Amino acid sequence: MSSCKFINTPALLLDLEIVQRNARLMLDRCQKLGVQLRPHMKTHKTLECADIMTGGSRRCIVVSTLAEASFYADRGYDDILYAYPLPFDKVERCAQLSERLSLFHVLLDNSLALQQLKKRPLSHGKIWHTAGVELTGIYAHCGNTYGCKGEEQIKAVAQQTTAITLQFMEKLKAIGIQGPKSSIGSTPSCSHPVPEMAMLSEVHPGNYVFYDVQQSLIGSCKLEDVAVRVLTRVIGHYPHRNQLLVDCGWTALSLDGGGRLPTGYAIIEGHPELKLTSMTQEHGRVEPISGELDFSQFPLGSVLTFIPHHACATAAMHPVYYVHSKGKIVDTWKPTRGW
Amino acid sequence: MSSCKFINTPALLLDLEIVQRNARLMLDRCQKLGVQLRPHMKTHKTLECADIMTGGSRRCIVVSTLAEASFYADRGYDDILYAYPLPFDKVERCAQLSERLSLFHVLLDNSLALQQLKKRPLSHGKIWHTAGVELTGIYAHCGNTYGCKGEEQIKAVAQQTTAITLQFMEKLKAIGIQGPKSSIGSTPSCSHPVPEMAMLSEVHPGNYVFYDVQQSLIGSCKLEDVAVRVLTRVIGHYPHRNQLLVDCGWTALSLDGGGRLPTGYAIIEGHPELKLTSMTQEHGRVEPISGELDFSQFPLGSVLTFIPHHACATAAMHPVYYVHSKGKIVDTWKPTRGW
Repeated sequence: MSSCKFINTPALLLDLEIVQRNARLMLDRCQKLGVQLRPHMKTHKTLECADIMTGGSRRCIVVSTLAEASFYADRGYDDILYAYPLPFDKVERCAQLSERLSLFHVLLDNSLALQQLKKRPLSHGKIWHTAGVELTGIYAHCGNTYGCKGEEQIKAVAQQTTAITLQFMEKLKAIGIQGPKSSIGSTPSCSHPVPEMAMLSEVHPGNYVFYDVQQSLIGSCKLEDVAVRVLTRVIGHYPHRNQLLVDCGWTALSLDGGGRLPTGYAIIEGHPELKLTSMTQEHGRVEPISGELDFSQFPLGSVLTFIPHHACATAAMHPVYYVHSKGKIVDTWKPTRGW
Repeated sequence: MSSCKFINTPALLLDLEIVQRNARLMLDRCQKLGVQLRPHMKTHKTLECADIMTGGSRRCIVVSTLAEASFYADRGYDDILYAYPLPFDKVERCAQLSERLSLFHVLLDNSLALQQLKKRPLSHGKIWHTAGVELTGIYAHCGNTYGCKGEEQIKAVAQQTTAITLQFMEKLKAIGIQGPKSSIGSTPSCSHPVPEMAMLSEVHPGNYVFYDVQQSLIGSCKLEDVAVRVLTRVIGHYPHRNQLLVDCGWTALSLDGGGRLPTGYAIIEGHPELKLTSMTQEHGRVEPISGELDFSQFPLGSVLTFIPHHACATAAMHPVYYVHSKGKIVDTWKPTRGW
């Protein structure tokens, strides 16, 4: 990452080749399985990464906020699913998106929410795409894959979630409701899909485009599949504390993971002997896991790279991502924020 | 907060009267003590709040990033202290700020950093305001006040930090270095200053303008002095889990505090019986501390307000702050972000 070393730190770096490879593998995996991939945008919230994840179609995505929905709608995206139990204060904004787009899907998990939608009929002959008004599909997340260790456990959860979802579809069919789609998917289950998932209509993972330490520990990926880093510099030597000070605090990494990794809040690339023990708003404290630190190895001003515990949480802290390819910064991506 | 209930959630709310009162009390306290207040901007990073904290002078502030320094310099601020061990990649940006402003102070804690400054002489007859080139002052933070419980412990730390700083000034004097300023200060120590602090030149607290649950537990303030809230709505009822789902996840509150309060990740205003047990990116899970939840008290769509554990961490998650006065939204403040 030769040119990367000249950018001001802290900075979020993305390896473009790995991002593209992760996206391509997921598209291929879903095509082979015969299910539609509806990638989630919540991890990155940028136009450029969305284009890579959709293979350029600009169709069929999931978002976690209406800020994301508007951001993508403004940039020519359509068929957007707002994967959130309908917030009553946002019915009007959802209505406007439904009227503006060919397909905007909302989620309901109670009858009161359905009443809220019925109170706001859509213009232009549009209908609400959801449950009841038009039941478009059934959506499950299988977030319990995040408690898994290894492919076998992930597959067991994926199988169970698929089975429950398909059983529910059968019950709907039995009472005369036919045709709704079924969608499950977290990054772990979609990284190791089970054959039964072929019976679903869609899957909706998101984190896979970056991956992170957490996903590598779950078994979704290998550490070399992680596309995201935080670049930081050594700004202090404190031999009396056996500590380096670096310019990456929780504003650049987030507190996700609570420092419970053997290497603390992150993995320090190329330095398995080091631990990021704590952070303040703008500082990180790096110590050896054991023994005395050789400060001459880490001159003031030298660069360290952190592999984050949770890419979604780390990316959420950055107003710009620096995208590199073969050691050169080739682009900067700007995410949308807020709600 | 009548009109506040109509804004989309999650949202960061600031009580203007409390912000003004906290700022006024600190200005008065420092005037009475005879030390210069140099308020820290890192908690809020907005123009409007800086104006309140400086009493409109737009002079004599501390910042934690060069993004903040430039933001304030662009808006007519001067006498800015960049409270950070000099990062070598940012010498040029610091030089430009030094040339542009009447007073821009940088911190050094090693001789290599001094060499870096000497390699970049300033134009327009300017000099570096720091150690060596021109030793402007000695700066200490007394971050160990954050381990305190109550006024007595805070005062002991404040006294100790003041004593050590003044002893160091004496040593400088003994070797012929006269005139540099001395500055200490965290929100706890400046909320309960000891008389010895009158011998310092400056203090530099920041969080006090908002305060938070952490500060109330330390004893810096009372809970009614906390100016900041996160507004959230109930979006799900899950009786089988004895849980409410709310639309505030870690993107709106941060993970600061690790959920270790008796009430979890925040205090839920007016509901000491409730606990924010966990959060995902956009959801929070609220449970009773004990017993069965009475769901009829918390209808879908109803509003809850969270008092954050750490105001700096929560504010860092928001692209806009909603400012209210006597129940009406009167302003929106937009912070600067990044580095």
